[in-house]
Amino acid sequence: MTPDPAPPAPGDAPRASAFPEYRRDPVTGRWAVVAPARALRPLVPHPAPADPEPPADCPFCPGNEHDTPGELFADRDPGTRANGPGWRLRVVPNRYPAVEPDAPAVGRHEVVIACPEHVTRAAELPRGAYRGLFRAYRERIRAHAADPRLGYTLAFKNVGAAAGASLAHAHAQLVATPFVPPVVAEELTRSEEHHARTGRCVFCELIATEASGPRRICETAGVLAVTAFAPRFAYEVWVLPKAHAARFETTADADVGELAGVVRRVVQAQDAVLGPVAFNWVLHTAPLRSAELPHYHWHLEILPRTATPAGLEWGGGCFVTTVAPEEAAGQLRGHV
Amino acid sequence: MTPDPAPPAPGDAPRASAFPEYRRDPVTGRWAVVAPARALRPLVPHPAPADPEPPADCPFCPGNEHDTPGELFADRDPGTRANGPGWRLRVVPNRYPAVEPDAPAVGRHEVVIACPEHVTRAAELPRGAYRGLFRAYRERIRAHAADPRLGYTLAFKNVGAAAGASLAHAHAQLVATPFVPPVVAEELTRSEEHHARTGRCVFCELIATEASGPRRICETAGVLAVTAFAPRFAYEVWVLPKAHAARFETTADADVGELAGVVRRVVQAQDAVLGPVAFNWVLHTAPLRSAELPHYHWHLEILPRTATPAGLEWGGGCFVTTVAPEEAAGQLRGHV
Repeated sequence: MTPDPAPPAPGDAPRASAFPEYRRDPVTGRWAVVAPARALRPLVPHPAPADPEPPADCPFCPGNEHDTPGELFADRDPGTRANGPGWRLRVVPNRYPAVEPDAPAVGRHEVVIACPEHVTRAAELPRGAYRGLFRAYRERIRAHAADPRLGYTLAFKNVGAAAGASLAHAHAQLVATPFVPPVVAEELTRSEEHHARTGRCVFCELIATEASGPRRICETAGVLAVTAFAPRFAYEVWVLPKAHAARFETTADADVGELAGVVRRVVQAQDAVLGPVAFNWVLHTAPLRSAELPHYHWHLEILPRTATPAGLEWGGGCFVTTVAPEEAAGQLRGHV
Repeated sequence: MTPDPAPPAPGDAPRASAFPEYRRDPVTGRWAVVAPARALRPLVPHPAPADPEPPADCPFCPGNEHDTPGELFADRDPGTRANGPGWRLRVVPNRYPAVEPDAPAVGRHEVVIACPEHVTRAAELPRGAYRGLFRAYRERIRAHAADPRLGYTLAFKNVGAAAGASLAHAHAQLVATPFVPPVVAEELTRSEEHHARTGRCVFCELIATEASGPRRICETAGVLAVTAFAPRFAYEVWVLPKAHAARFETTADADVGELAGVVRRVVQAQDAVLGPVAFNWVLHTAPLRSAELPHYHWHLEILPRTATPAGLEWGGGCFVTTVAPEEAAGQLRGHV
């Protein structure tokens, strides 16, 4: 087996003459090929489609609450009843669950309906909906932690059919499973090894390096957004809290609001640069009921569908990117 | 962290009452959720599109050899010249390479043009084209092994825009890199651990179990095709040589022909069940210049695009499948 070549360290300036370039993500070990020459083949972001459903038939619109299973959590006007109108956000079980609370293979599959208005473009969601959505993630993760059969809650959002969304009304999801999903398990293992070797959190190192580097997009006092060093998709963005914290569910209200604001700015910038692009975001946090881990650091990954993964990606786990992350960050910086 | 629940062992019969069901692949450790209830949401295979290009403009058709870089390998009629007509198969550098032979980050990106006829539907490719294609993989892997800077060659085929193909004329690809792609590296590590623990090849065990089980599709004297126990996509198929062999490039001509025949039958069966579906196949073999490894076993994975991976898949590495692999195998058996 050939040893890995030394990848350029995060923080290196882009070197136009060195393309194509191999990059290995310091957190996950994933390989990316940054190959702008392939951009001769046009980048075609997969659009998030216009809403095929009129609001009258939308199960997530007010008045249609009976079209979803009964709500698990809601932000409601005083005096309104569960499963009726008068809400700003609802969490309900997924009607077509991948996993179920009472099946032999226990799990939870929940939908966060982010706002009552039939907003379909993530960039147009009001700031309050972003804030409510991340607070709902936090509350549901806390609720799942009370069930000892569950080991992990993966919180994510799919936008557009090309990113796996089947309904257009703005929503997000949570899936809780007995096991830690493999992508997160890999991050946990590798970050623990890094900590054992260096005494430091690999994410804290990344934040220290990236905050002043060419992949920085924007930041607040407590939150940093950067393009991924070794992306799976062009314009992939990671959003991280600057202070070390392994468990998202311990985040205070004010800090959730700060995160929501940064994520909204990034989504709006991606929309401005790429058009109404399909995307997923996913929250990576420590397993349910973890101790505060010194090596792990929660963060949000935003993956716009700017390419179609093919044999090299599915079969090899190597991702070809035609827009350098430094170039993508520069474009996004112009719109945050 | 919660310990992994014991997954059902490969070879267990399907248990309709146990759905949804978690399955962990014994080779890769990937998790799948087999959740037929979600099939209430219709399975929509992504079609391989009709050819948008007339053959006259197709760079892979005879007479247009000047539209590709000069050929690296060909199966030609006696007396014909390189880069002119008279060929049955050509291998050329990719015109839009992800990696390049002379870049600082060395690599090879090659295209196998599988037949001179403008065939666009993989199920309609003649048997000779399948045989030629796998022989070309073997020859190019042998050629790459002579370059000590290269560590691995990933051979694959993309069919349909939804699986990342940009040209319709039947073709396949190879990408050689200095490093072993992460998905293969993970298989190597886990199969080596399995061998150290048990003294056996995990793939040989899988073959012994699956050959008489509900996921068997078809076989010949030397080759077995089965649906994957914990699939990424519904109707995912693995094709394996029955005799232990780590390195595809050591396969004899007759055995390559047998493999080609089985792969063609599987592709035709998938086409019969799913329609002209977009798919990738990928050859997993040992790294270039490996010794014959007791723990690794080359095989071909065929991944039809029967679903759109979303947040759970990209962010967690958990794959939801709405058609049980046993059901899929039964359907495919009806068409091989």
